[in-house]
Amino acid sequence: MDVAAREPQAKCGLEWRVTVPEGASVTVEHDAGVAARAWAWLVSCVVAIRVAVAGFARKVWKIGADDPRRAVHGLKVGLALTLVSVVYYTRPVYDGVGGNAMWAVMTVVVVFEYTVGGCMYKGFNRAVATVSAGLIALGVNWVADKSGDKLEPFILSGSLFLLAAAATFSRFIPTVKARFDYGVTIFILTFSLVAVSGYRVDQLLDLAQQRMSTIGIGIVICLAVCVLIWPVWAGQELHLLTVRNMEKLAGAVEACVEDYFAAGSAKPAAAASSKSEGYKCVLNSKASEDSQANLARWEPPHGRFAFRHPYAQYAKVGAAMRHCAYCVESLSSCARAEAQAPEHAKRLLGDVCTRLGARCARVLVEASASVAAMTDPKTVDFAVADMNTAVHELQGDLRALPPVLLALEPAAEMSLMDAMPLFTVASLLIEISARIEGVVDAVETLASLANFKQVEDGDDKKGQTTETKVHPLNVQDDDASAQENQTMKHAEQEHCNTTVK
Amino acid sequence: MDVAAREPQAKCGLEWRVTVPEGASVTVEHDAGVAARAWAWLVSCVVAIRVAVAGFARKVWKIGADDPRRAVHGLKVGLALTLVSVVYYTRPVYDGVGGNAMWAVMTVVVVFEYTVGGCMYKGFNRAVATVSAGLIALGVNWVADKSGDKLEPFILSGSLFLLAAAATFSRFIPTVKARFDYGVTIFILTFSLVAVSGYRVDQLLDLAQQRMSTIGIGIVICLAVCVLIWPVWAGQELHLLTVRNMEKLAGAVEACVEDYFAAGSAKPAAAASSKSEGYKCVLNSKASEDSQANLARWEPPHGRFAFRHPYAQYAKVGAAMRHCAYCVESLSSCARAEAQAPEHAKRLLGDVCTRLGARCARVLVEASASVAAMTDPKTVDFAVADMNTAVHELQGDLRALPPVLLALEPAAEMSLMDAMPLFTVASLLIEISARIEGVVDAVETLASLANFKQVEDGDDKKGQTTETKVHPLNVQDDDASAQENQTMKHAEQEHCNTTVK
Repeated sequence: MDVAAREPQAKCGLEWRVTVPEGASVTVEHDAGVAARAWAWLVSCVVAIRVAVAGFARKVWKIGADDPRRAVHGLKVGLALTLVSVVYYTRPVYDGVGGNAMWAVMTVVVVFEYTVGGCMYKGFNRAVATVSAGLIALGVNWVADKSGDKLEPFILSGSLFLLAAAATFSRFIPTVKARFDYGVTIFILTFSLVAVSGYRVDQLLDLAQQRMSTIGIGIVICLAVCVLIWPVWAGQELHLLTVRNMEKLAGAVEACVEDYFAAGSAKPAAAASSKSEGYKCVLNSKASEDSQANLARWEPPHGRFAFRHPYAQYAKVGAAMRHCAYCVESLSSCARAEAQAPEHAKRLLGDVCTRLGARCARVLVEASASVAAMTDPKTVDFAVADMNTAVHELQGDLRALPPVLLALEPAAEMSLMDAMPLFTVASLLIEISARIEGVVDAVETLASLANFKQVEDGDDKKGQTTETKVHPLNVQDDDASAQENQTMKHAEQEHCNTTVK
Repeated sequence: MDVAAREPQAKCGLEWRVTVPEGASVTVEHDAGVAARAWAWLVSCVVAIRVAVAGFARKVWKIGADDPRRAVHGLKVGLALTLVSVVYYTRPVYDGVGGNAMWAVMTVVVVFEYTVGGCMYKGFNRAVATVSAGLIALGVNWVADKSGDKLEPFILSGSLFLLAAAATFSRFIPTVKARFDYGVTIFILTFSLVAVSGYRVDQLLDLAQQRMSTIGIGIVICLAVCVLIWPVWAGQELHLLTVRNMEKLAGAVEACVEDYFAAGSAKPAAAASSKSEGYKCVLNSKASEDSQANLARWEPPHGRFAFRHPYAQYAKVGAAMRHCAYCVESLSSCARAEAQAPEHAKRLLGDVCTRLGARCARVLVEASASVAAMTDPKTVDFAVADMNTAVHELQGDLRALPPVLLALEPAAEMSLMDAMPLFTVASLLIEISARIEGVVDAVETLASLANFKQVEDGDDKKGQTTETKVHPLNVQDDDASAQENQTMKHAEQEHCNTTVK
């Protein structure tokens, strides 16, 4: 991209118009010497900075445009903070930042999270940890108070040391880490503040009561803004991520098989190739699935997600999909390999393999539609049966292949060995179909745990279409990331999960 | 396991000794009726609770015993907190928890992290964010002060809203998220506290100066305790994780091939099988590699890790290893498949495949030794050459296989088709060896970026041995996790990375 940089002080009579490629510096050959060269250097610097800023601005704009909920999240945090500051600003007895108002502000800043689940998790942890640590600290202070001036500092410091050490260590316990990590921090913080405060117990009771109420106000404002204004539910994000990944996996299986059998005739089109990379998103979404499943458990019932929705099972569906994606990765590397089976051998299995690929994809698409619409995955069974028929056909064709190849060419052994990559592709496909059954099993478990509703024939399709229309943002997002998803390295940077914080 | 529960009130004359299996409730058939049954229920409850507590205690003990540095971390946090509280407790002018002492305590609680890198990251972010937000807030307060009483609240609230929204949104930018996430939180927090404080600018300057010094004291105490007492370096953890994963991958490649060719003769031993699962740790360590590489960049030079050590390249080595592990996963599923090639066909390729597997493993072991000892991976090239020779041998044997099989049996076509799983294993092995070359390339890039030292022949082995002895903890840890690592589900729960917080 070329940039036309117009020198700003044009009115001095000197007018420059330099057209430079992005990032390049302008080299002006001139007799005027040092001054002119310095000037040219300055101009090139200004241009480079402008280009960098424009590039950065474009990136930032894209982040917001890909998912406007992010920009809305920023505004929500601003709103919650302004609300809490206004509440304290307009109170008749305003006691400044040194007082308790700051606890409300602090609560809003640290508790407000992108998803409702995150907000609930932090709010709950903060409230419970503050109360329990406050009570324990009061008890310790009372004991220290009774035991005389000499022992007091030792009791206080000793209990602080022991409790902080034990609480910190408890964060290495996986359950604590997953559910109460933030609470442990707040527990240590509150206990230290109260224990070393030097106040007497009756003063502390007053202080505690005030602080609880301010923290309560902060949490209430946070939750209200988070839930009432365009809420982002971790459970729904997890649900959509699972559906999206299943669709991507379906696309990847089909595209990889097509790529392989098209590779000889012509290089695969860029569009098909980007579709066949979809499995990489599945490979890289473990971390976001786990964190969302963790946060989703804190969320109240909302929409189609009832109380105690089996979010953990989504993580298992994700594990089954990854198990499948490992195989798809091997398949995709076969399509990209240099040593390819001869065309005539490929043609013999092309149809049956492509059919199996398409049917594998159909099973996954049906399963994802059933998850998306939260309907019983009844029709998936038919698709699985079709897929297994295709597997048997492929196995039959494979069995029939050697005689055919032997008949086609005199140097039959050579021909058989050249066809080896084809055998590999076929057996990977068979393995993939077995793993897809694993995904279907996980989906069926999910359906029974979450009481997915039974549908009459015909209703099913309708539910699906509605579902897709409800979340246009995520579909866009999805396409955008699929477009970029060109190299392994990109996928490793996990940009597939653009909606995941 | 049986537990002998002795009823505590034995002195009442009633002595019970109930032996129950873990978690089971005791059912006592008795004529005495409700009271006796209630009593039995109570006893069974006590027993169940005791068993649960004992089980939990054993788990917690294991977490600490697996890596004593975790327990030490707890003690370090306790020590840092006690130190900071003592500093403020013994100061002549002690102003209580409402004053500035709390900022030092708060800093220690939130800044102290398991790794030095984490501590530096949080300390740096906290310091810079506090200073910058404080300065901006002072400026805004000054402007608001000058613009009259009516405009003041609007300027303050408006700037709070805009800055909080912009800062929150900036967390979605990947670079900001990775390096300054905590800083953004502190920026918003400090700005809100100062902006809505209602103090005049000259009061604020005093307050700011005091607060900076307390936060500074907190950060200094944190870093001192973190670095001086048994420090845990994120860079070293990343380094060891990479070495360990490479060794596990080597073991898995070799064990999978052996399992496959041993599967017919006898079921593979449990020990071999657990070794062949090592690739799962590689598959699941992306998240910890990324986070450690992120934290390691904040660490000062230490030991063999110089300033600007190329930690990002470790993540690339990890990506190459994962790329390889996907294929090993497919290979391992071949060994576990029901449809196996006939024994006589397996025997024909058994030797050459096992040799290739062993040489693949050797390449990885040499590469990991070179990374571990931080020496130039010169000897790896020989191992790669050996591996490639084995690949050529395998390809030659494969080419010779059809005539041999044709000669062995009359129904040659059938025999060839039955041998298909064998072809799949062979081509997967060839693909694995190609991907191992990718790992070696990544290791060589790492070696050149990190200026790994050149070694004379013979020195190399010595360096290796020393290295292994330096970190007995991690080796133990490793073995322990390999033992448990039985199922896919376990590996999915990422317990392989037990040393990773």
